[in-house]
This record gives sequence, structure tokens and C-alpha cells, in this order.
Amino acid sequence: MITLTAYNWVPPIVRGLVRDLRVRWALEEAGLPYRVELLDQRNKPEDYREWQPWSQVPAYEEDGVRLFESGAIVLHIAEKSPVLAPRDPAAKARMTCWLFAAINSVEPPLQELALMDFMHADKDWAKVRRPMVVEFVQRRLKGLADALDGGEFLEGGFTAADLMMASVLRMARGKGLLEEAGLDDYLARCEARPAFQTALAGQMADFQDAA
Amino acid sequence: MITLTAYNWVPPIVRGLVRDLRVRWALEEAGLPYRVELLDQRNKPEDYREWQPWSQVPAYEEDGVRLFESGAIVLHIAEKSPVLAPRDPAAKARMTCWLFAAINSVEPPLQELALMDFMHADKDWAKVRRPMVVEFVQRRLKGLADALDGGEFLEGGFTAADLMMASVLRMARGKGLLEEAGLDDYLARCEARPAFQTALAGQMADFQDAA
Repeated sequence: MITLTAYNWVPPIVRGLVRDLRVRWALEEAGLPYRVELLDQRNKPEDYREWQPWSQVPAYEEDGVRLFESGAIVLHIAEKSPVLAPRDPAAKARMTCWLFAAINSVEPPLQELALMDFMHADKDWAKVRRPMVVEFVQRRLKGLADALDGGEFLEGGFTAADLMMASVLRMARGKGLLEEAGLDDYLARCEARPAFQTALAGQMADFQDAA
Repeated sequence: MITLTAYNWVPPIVRGLVRDLRVRWALEEAGLPYRVELLDQRNKPEDYREWQPWSQVPAYEEDGVRLFESGAIVLHIAEKSPVLAPRDPAAKARMTCWLFAAINSVEPPLQELALMDFMHADKDWAKVRRPMVVEFVQRRLKGLADALDGGEFLEGGFTAADLMMASVLRMARGKGLLEEAGLDDYLARCEARPAFQTALAGQMADFQDAA
């Protein structure tokens, strides 16, 4: 049996962005059953850090093996599922490059921008800093759009790399940057997958004030 | 044959930090022969972006398969080498978690701090922002130190996870943060490996003004 952790409440503005969504999406694509262990963000079990060293979600358990980091968990699930990873070793290695690209080259500047807009929009230092971060994000999005080159997905058909890239790009929504780079269609194409819709509905339904 | 890309010149302050070092280190640990293709940072081949979408180093080629992203390349090399990855699937999955932790949870705040200190130390906005970044870095380093819990390496013996974590921690040097978190011994232990010393000497010798 597979267990993953998620929060029972987060502020509305970050709903649909918490990282357990990526793992739910991967599990839905792979058709693997799972249970969600809901945590109270302000009152986590005392030993949770032994499972997740930053005390964040998601953490994941399968047959007694405890994993953490959404990138590692999605890659682990992809290895079980031909929907998420090509079987050919060279194609799988290319897929893994794009998964790391999402996590290490696209997410950090997008996250810096999202946190700045979410927490510090009115601060003087953020007003000076923001254009530099935006310029860096624009360069990354252009590199991604050039690599996609009008194609449907990053490496032929949909893979875990698209799952991760789309999950990361969702953080940029509402800033006009995806449209400017011509990546809004790519994101919409990924989000149109039924597995994504099921995963998103699952995360939203688990917030205790959802009803 | 394996080829990786590196720069023939970078400013002295970032020497020993350019990311081809991680790949050189992994190849030295694995005992795999390789050649380095040196690039001029200001004058890269026009089609280099087709290999590396951000036009950075390292990029990697092996038997006609072209890879990018240092995390993906190190993981690819680890899969060939029992020195870098345990053979047991559960242990390998745990190693992969820590490799992603280095890349996605520790490197982004360390990189934000390093770039700020390198490029913006004298700016007013950076003086306001820096303590927030430092506080976030401190929390990450404490989480890492708690997980290590006095152990020699992250998951038993040395693995690619330690290689990546040490590579990332090197960015924090000279700020007192590693000593404060009690991570300086861990970093020194990783850097004492002969494969690291060979890799570092290789990167340094490839800068054209090295002599």
C-alpha cells in the first residue's frame, strides 16, 4: 500500500500548488491506489522530520520504504509506469533530464517570484528586486519554449517530465509570463489530462473547509 | 566514449563551483574515462542550446545520447557504479531522495544567497533581503545536520547523494553557516575523497590562464 502526506488546510491562494499534487498526479497516471495522510501544518507529529527532513509535504511510504522530495517520488513512481517513463534507457535518461530541469532550473526562479509576490509585494526591496527575477524567469521560459519548439510534449509523448514541468509552471500563472513565452497551451494540454483533474480534485477536497 | 562540457575561463571567485565539477567527480568515482569539451562562455557554438537548453555547462554525451542538468547526469552515472549508488532498490530510492534534496531543497536558497553576495552585496535591497535568505538557509542546514545526526554520510556509506550535497554546500563556504550548523566536518569528509580532488584539479587546470 502507498501512503502520501498532504495538508488538511492551507491558505486559499496556495491551494492547487502544494507539492503533494505532483505525487497524486503521478499515482493517478500510473493507476496505483494510495491513501493520503492529512497533517495539520501547525501541529505535525513530533517524529515527522525523521520522514521528511524539512517538515514539509509530501512524504511517501510504500512497503515500509519512506521517501521524500517530490522529484524523487515522482521519478520512483515513473519507474513503475510506462505511462510516465519510456522503457528505452536512452529515452528514459532524456526524460529524467527534463524532470531535473523542471526541479532545478525552472522551479527555483519561479518559486522566488511567486513567494515575492505572495509575501512581499508591498516591500520596497521587492520592488527593486522583482524585475531581475522576472527577467531570469523569462529567459528560462524562453529556453523551455524553444526546446518544445511547438511540439506537444518535451520528449515525444507525455512523460513524468511534462508532469513535473507543468506542476512547476502552474506557479507562474496570472503574471502574463506563460502567455508571453507561448507556454500557456503546453500547460493547458498537460492539465487537461484526466489524471491531473482527479489529482487536483483530490487535493482540494482534502482541505477541511472544502465543503 | 563520454564527453562533457566545461568552460575554458570563469572569474576566479566561481572556480571550483562550476557545475561540471559534479559530473567530473561522479565520473572519477565511477572510474569512467571521459573527455572534456571546453567552451568559451562568451562565444558558444550556435547550436549548443539544442544540447543544453539554458546554454550552461555541463552537458554530457555518451554513445550518441545527449544529456543535460547536473542532477540527471550524476544520477545516470550513479546507475552504472556501485561506488555511487547502492544496488538494493529501497536503498537506491533513499539515495535518490537525498540527491533531489540537495538539488531542490538545499541548492536554491544557497544559490540565492551566493548570487546575492557575489553580485549585489552593496545594494540596499540586498541588505534588507539577505537576513531572510540567511534564515531560510539556516533552517535547511539544520534539517540536514539533524538528518545526518553525527553520521559519516547521508545513507550509510558514501553515495551520489553525498557527492551532490557536498557540491551544493561548497557554495556556502566562507559565510560561517556551515560551521554554525556543524556541517563543516561532513563537507571536509566528502571533499577528502581522492576522486573529488582529481575532479577539482581537472576543472582548475582547464581554465586557460591556469598556468
